[in-house]
Amino acid sequence: MVKKLDQLKTLLGEVVDLKSAQGVLGWDQETLMPPGGAEGRGYQLGTLAKIAHEKFTSDEVGQLLDDLEPLTSQLLADSDDDCLIRYSLREYRKLKRVPAAFVEEDTRVTSNAYSVWEKAKATSDFARFQPELEKIVALRRQYASFFQPYEHVYDPLLDDYETGLKTAEVKNIFNALRPQQVALLQAIAEKPAPDDSFLKANYPEQLQLNFGKEVITRFGFDWQRGREDLSVHPFTTGFNTGDVRITTRVDPQQLDMAMFGTMHEAGHAMYEQGVDPALNRTPLASGASMALHESQSRLWENLVGRSRPFWSFFYPRLQQLFPSQLGNVSQESFYRGINRVERSLIRTEADEATYNLHIMLRLELEIALMEGSLEVKDLPEAWNSRMKEYLGLTPPDNARGVLQDVHWSMGSFGYFATYALGNLVSAQIWEAINADLPGLEKNISEGEFKPLLSWLHEKIHRHGSKFEPQDLIRKVTGTGITPEPYIRYLTVKYSEIYHL
Amino acid sequence: MVKKLDQLKTLLGEVVDLKSAQGVLGWDQETLMPPGGAEGRGYQLGTLAKIAHEKFTSDEVGQLLDDLEPLTSQLLADSDDDCLIRYSLREYRKLKRVPAAFVEEDTRVTSNAYSVWEKAKATSDFARFQPELEKIVALRRQYASFFQPYEHVYDPLLDDYETGLKTAEVKNIFNALRPQQVALLQAIAEKPAPDDSFLKANYPEQLQLNFGKEVITRFGFDWQRGREDLSVHPFTTGFNTGDVRITTRVDPQQLDMAMFGTMHEAGHAMYEQGVDPALNRTPLASGASMALHESQSRLWENLVGRSRPFWSFFYPRLQQLFPSQLGNVSQESFYRGINRVERSLIRTEADEATYNLHIMLRLELEIALMEGSLEVKDLPEAWNSRMKEYLGLTPPDNARGVLQDVHWSMGSFGYFATYALGNLVSAQIWEAINADLPGLEKNISEGEFKPLLSWLHEKIHRHGSKFEPQDLIRKVTGTGITPEPYIRYLTVKYSEIYHL
Repeated sequence: MVKKLDQLKTLLGEVVDLKSAQGVLGWDQETLMPPGGAEGRGYQLGTLAKIAHEKFTSDEVGQLLDDLEPLTSQLLADSDDDCLIRYSLREYRKLKRVPAAFVEEDTRVTSNAYSVWEKAKATSDFARFQPELEKIVALRRQYASFFQPYEHVYDPLLDDYETGLKTAEVKNIFNALRPQQVALLQAIAEKPAPDDSFLKANYPEQLQLNFGKEVITRFGFDWQRGREDLSVHPFTTGFNTGDVRITTRVDPQQLDMAMFGTMHEAGHAMYEQGVDPALNRTPLASGASMALHESQSRLWENLVGRSRPFWSFFYPRLQQLFPSQLGNVSQESFYRGINRVERSLIRTEADEATYNLHIMLRLELEIALMEGSLEVKDLPEAWNSRMKEYLGLTPPDNARGVLQDVHWSMGSFGYFATYALGNLVSAQIWEAINADLPGLEKNISEGEFKPLLSWLHEKIHRHGSKFEPQDLIRKVTGTGITPEPYIRYLTVKYSEIYHL
Repeated sequence: MVKKLDQLKTLLGEVVDLKSAQGVLGWDQETLMPPGGAEGRGYQLGTLAKIAHEKFTSDEVGQLLDDLEPLTSQLLADSDDDCLIRYSLREYRKLKRVPAAFVEEDTRVTSNAYSVWEKAKATSDFARFQPELEKIVALRRQYASFFQPYEHVYDPLLDDYETGLKTAEVKNIFNALRPQQVALLQAIAEKPAPDDSFLKANYPEQLQLNFGKEVITRFGFDWQRGREDLSVHPFTTGFNTGDVRITTRVDPQQLDMAMFGTMHEAGHAMYEQGVDPALNRTPLASGASMALHESQSRLWENLVGRSRPFWSFFYPRLQQLFPSQLGNVSQESFYRGINRVERSLIRTEADEATYNLHIMLRLELEIALMEGSLEVKDLPEAWNSRMKEYLGLTPPDNARGVLQDVHWSMGSFGYFATYALGNLVSAQIWEAINADLPGLEKNISEGEFKPLLSWLHEKIHRHGSKFEPQDLIRKVTGTGITPEPYIRYLTVKYSEIYHL
């Protein structure tokens, strides 16, 4: 058994190497690659994806997993090896349903679609992107077909980001959440909004970057095992626990985008940096799911980064950095300003009270595209009419509407839901942390984040993907994903700010 | 036949993709990777190298090549397809002798040795690097053994950088060259040296970088298909004709290092950018050999970059950029200063009259290590005694002696000779260009480099690796590699500068 386990680890190690290489190439593509490199990069990524897929779904891996499965009873339950075999079996059986040729085509189409989307967004030209998106939707439907029978055609997509979660469950969670969010938003809308005009001013790019670095260094982001660069759409990518990279973008006329974006990505990155290094070169050396990942980024961005204790420590520093812009803005005004609720067009700039509505819109459109009740050509109209219905707004162009997100160009259907679920989980985790760490608020107000990060490392990060995400959430918070803690959090916070 | 050729191209395309991916990972490793990423990167590179090797040496490729070889008579001689088959056959038969396990071990050992070398050089600690270098020498000797019988144990190493060239030929060339270089150097040493003290002053890093960029932009470096970054040891790497990257290093107290280093790397890069894009995704889409590559970098760095016409255009610009440092230095003094001949310790900073002596030293040591007449532990002493003999200098420490170059840490034995050969070839090509372009000096003095670059593209670059390097050199210059044009060039240039 030991020998077979070693063989399995050797083979999986090569698959991990190939995927890490894809990660590096993808990072390079979105940060530094010159335009002329795009075509070649598509081929490179396609070839790596194809070989990784072939290697993981090889008969040799299948035979080893079959041989090892009955022997897991000899292993310590939840040991690294036990989890590795179970995780790999689950993934193997899933991937085995997907032909290598499909994976290669999918990678090539999305690599090309990404650059088309970039140009389409720049010129707000949906027609330019439409044929690419049609290819992508067709590929996603084909993908789902490999998993028949399913309860719902969207289930196989969702499962790739949130193992074990079903479309029906997400609908239930969102159906419980929606009326409460809408009611809260309605109550807020009836009150005068705090002023946030000070966020728009001349904030030099380099100073913004310096502040972001100072904040996440204090959070505990490890620069020996990571770096930060600029990209059009901020993201985090890790190649192993020793090399985890974030990107950010800076608007020199607006303060909050880079600031909260950097905290958000650092939340993702500290999750990856916190995985037990013993899991490196195995498929377990990464976060357990997208919702869990988003719970970490949201926790640092919102529950920490938009809180009073955080700013009682950092606001004097920020004022010192931007004396002419913020010298006359009190800490209280600043706190209220950054928590101003506003129905807006852009998801990534949405506040905590409206964000989930952006997600619900996308989820419904994705499900309709997958069910075939909506065609790609009708997507801009469907987007705009829902936008009107949920947020009372009509995008002035497609760049600020249906073209705003990178995800569809990358074939990432099933991803969006996890953003809203991550919000919910972040509040669930926050309640658990506060129960364990009664001094947390005081720590944060003193710029001391070690107890918080250590708690997250211990309870969540170090496990990587050893446990199924829904199990891990239950283990950490005591329940499955549930909207109540998030609603409680929003209600307390905004009741105070808006005097509801 | 068409079908088999397509099959071959598909398979070779994947190999090229894997090698390009290795290139990106290598570039990242030496420019931006955080230290924590080193271990994982070693595994990633090892796995990619192993798979590329397996794929290229697969029975499927072998069978296709065997089937296609007799059919090349049906192809247009020297057509892309004809050259592809012949090149691939040669490489296949060579690689087929090397076991995949060797390649993987070699890649892993050298990846690790690289970071050990970096630290050893920083602390001038040869003992730290010695065990790594011993492993590398053993691997190189093992490598040569795969090619028995050979005329000389060093031949197989040389062949990897300069296909078809033999150790005996290089010895002959160098034996003809050495006495003439030594005599010239002796004559120069008897004359007063021009002042170059102005090169050492405060030259702000960013201004140096800006000047380098201005120069290579005028040369014709295409920024849409390339970029420039910083690294410890400057290098050029291309992933296809659309993405060719150079690195440079800047000493803020010294002007010439970054300036000539940037021109040098741009020379390499414009070669890669000039390859016919139709050759992309084939093994032919890169320069034909190291000596040819070095002929291009040296041509731009020295025959262009250290010439009077070049500075008659660029010196006023340089003076404008650094008025306090160069305001009182005449163009003539500047020209003489940058061409000052000086026996020095560091190869990469050596001038045109001494450079080849640095190479001869290394070549002799490499050959001795390969023959077994020199042990790694005795290398610093052997280095220092030859340094004394050839250049009259004793390195004050190993960092400025045996540890100065990156090459051995990367397993690159057989590489150094091509630097000196490149010098010789650059002068051969220069004579051919001047015969074809009588207005060349005038063009250069007007900052007009298009005729020169077009000539190089047409005669050399676009062919990629279609032709064997010795054949291409003969085609372009009329002879094989020969020292006379370089000696002529040096003699004319330095006779004038030093009044010999």
